[in-house]
Amino acid sequence: MKPEANLTVADIGEQGLLAKLKAFCPSSIVGDDAAVLNFSGDHSLVISTDVLVDGVHFSDGIAKPDVYTTSPEDVGWRAVAANLSDLAAMGASPWGITVGLTLPGDLAVTWVERLYQGLSECLRQYETVLWGGDIARSSVITLSITAVGKVSPQAVIRRQDARVGDVILATGEHGASRAGLELLLHPERQQELSPVDAQKLIRTHQHPQPRLDVPPLLQKILPEFRVGGMDSSDGLADAILQICRASGVGAKISRESLPIPDELLKWLSPEQALNWTLYGGEDFELVLTLPRQFAESLREQLGNSARIIGEITKETDVKLSDFDLDLSQGFQHFSNSLKNQRSRRV
Amino acid sequence: MKPEANLTVADIGEQGLLAKLKAFCPSSIVGDDAAVLNFSGDHSLVISTDVLVDGVHFSDGIAKPDVYTTSPEDVGWRAVAANLSDLAAMGASPWGITVGLTLPGDLAVTWVERLYQGLSECLRQYETVLWGGDIARSSVITLSITAVGKVSPQAVIRRQDARVGDVILATGEHGASRAGLELLLHPERQQELSPVDAQKLIRTHQHPQPRLDVPPLLQKILPEFRVGGMDSSDGLADAILQICRASGVGAKISRESLPIPDELLKWLSPEQALNWTLYGGEDFELVLTLPRQFAESLREQLGNSARIIGEITKETDVKLSDFDLDLSQGFQHFSNSLKNQRSRRV
Repeated sequence: MKPEANLTVADIGEQGLLAKLKAFCPSSIVGDDAAVLNFSGDHSLVISTDVLVDGVHFSDGIAKPDVYTTSPEDVGWRAVAANLSDLAAMGASPWGITVGLTLPGDLAVTWVERLYQGLSECLRQYETVLWGGDIARSSVITLSITAVGKVSPQAVIRRQDARVGDVILATGEHGASRAGLELLLHPERQQELSPVDAQKLIRTHQHPQPRLDVPPLLQKILPEFRVGGMDSSDGLADAILQICRASGVGAKISRESLPIPDELLKWLSPEQALNWTLYGGEDFELVLTLPRQFAESLREQLGNSARIIGEITKETDVKLSDFDLDLSQGFQHFSNSLKNQRSRRV
Repeated sequence: MKPEANLTVADIGEQGLLAKLKAFCPSSIVGDDAAVLNFSGDHSLVISTDVLVDGVHFSDGIAKPDVYTTSPEDVGWRAVAANLSDLAAMGASPWGITVGLTLPGDLAVTWVERLYQGLSECLRQYETVLWGGDIARSSVITLSITAVGKVSPQAVIRRQDARVGDVILATGEHGASRAGLELLLHPERQQELSPVDAQKLIRTHQHPQPRLDVPPLLQKILPEFRVGGMDSSDGLADAILQICRASGVGAKISRESLPIPDELLKWLSPEQALNWTLYGGEDFELVLTLPRQFAESLREQLGNSARIIGEITKETDVKLSDFDLDLSQGFQHFSNSLKNQRSRRV
């Protein structure tokens, strides 16, 4: 084994490094999608920073325009959507963002302007403001977005707030973003679907919609607010596992209730469709745990586009019914997630 | 001339690009070191993002350890100090920061931990919290810091608030940071000074102190708060010019009053010392405009470590007395500033 003094970032990975660096933050604010800060009695601020790197999180298109998976407008839209999803995951409404950008000197100014058009389009849709930022020269395009939102202190959604007996509700569908990326990376596979289905999946990948509609509904439905949850940016299975770990509970997920998109069922083997739904990632939906009656109300309010996919259990393992699959095992085995796909492209 | 559609970032420069991108921000919050956001009646938030890139803003030490100008701890300290200086420049007190970091896989974990020790040391000194952040893999180390502060809405310092008849007060000395960098880049020049002087200049470069002590004093001194100003991160002359442009006024600067460090006068020709004092940059002091009586009070409160260096005039040019130098001309001519030094190192 390597002596600790010689370890590199690659040796311990981003997750290993993040775990070490958490020691520098106050323990009270670590562990969720964003930090929650008490400002005054009625208001807390929620703040979240995400870093996107060209070639890892988007496009490859600068260096290799032939494998452009995302236009600059879509890079901008997705970057903002991912950040606003972190705010939705905490129950907050968005307020504004700052952007730290690095770029190479030979990058076209129009590329940067189109990026900002995409950022602005998503900001406008969610009534959020671009406050400013900074630009610096570098050989790599990176985009560091800090998003700030507001939330009433009693309406914060946290990973640690799942309770035994809660049901697990997932908004929207899962797996479509991963499928859309597949079609962009391997355009020849688009022939395997109808053009309408292919376009829908691609659009879902390029233009995700953060679920900022959900927190206000939750606040109306729940008399005494206590909702566990997070967003599904790293995959549905990962969200369930993170919530269970943070809350010290387990979960039983019903396979038949999983929000697998019809397009995937028509296109893929049942196993492949299940895999992408559980582990695909970047769907930017919400995974929430709450008492059944309130979950049912929320589902109705959302026009039945959300599903109750399982329940929180005392046993701390996370099981998929009728499939004899331990999701945490699966997470290691099915190393086919979007995150891993991407990492390999670094 | 190149058609506009083909322009690159290098063609128009960071400043040209920032000017274009400002169109995407609300006009009310553009033009200062940070954005000011009304939160509730008694409190405004101030938010600022800075991006630092290895090889441009710090060290070179990763690729070329022989020209290490800054240890990882000092990179961390300086990054936080620069951001907190933006808050001081707006009259705010710091609250917390987030950090977006990109790093190569072969970087030593200990380097990152030492960086965070430096960040934390500066945060601790100024009672500020690390709220969290994000890490991503890239071939280049970049550090994007977003700092958030609080300020009472009537105590905001803005560039646009200089008035004819105000005097111009500069805190601390100017030029020492540029001199310290020179000694780090050309260690053989350290023999030209006493070891004590050389170490003081190097320390000033590596460990700048944001002037967070000044806003609380100003708030005590001024019955009706109205202070123009900004920090001198891009140089003393640049700060004066920016304030004058934003306020639609000019300035007359007295050469004898300029805060030239003694170490520079002993070491350099008078012209070179003046040059670095005016254009060196990264001293992270404050340049303020306010009525003379209050400036005198502030100077006393600061133990005479601040100087009144000139006054605001109706004529919109910025002149250095007894030297027949138009500072804005000088800014173009003396292309010897730290910023330009650095750009050449990209």
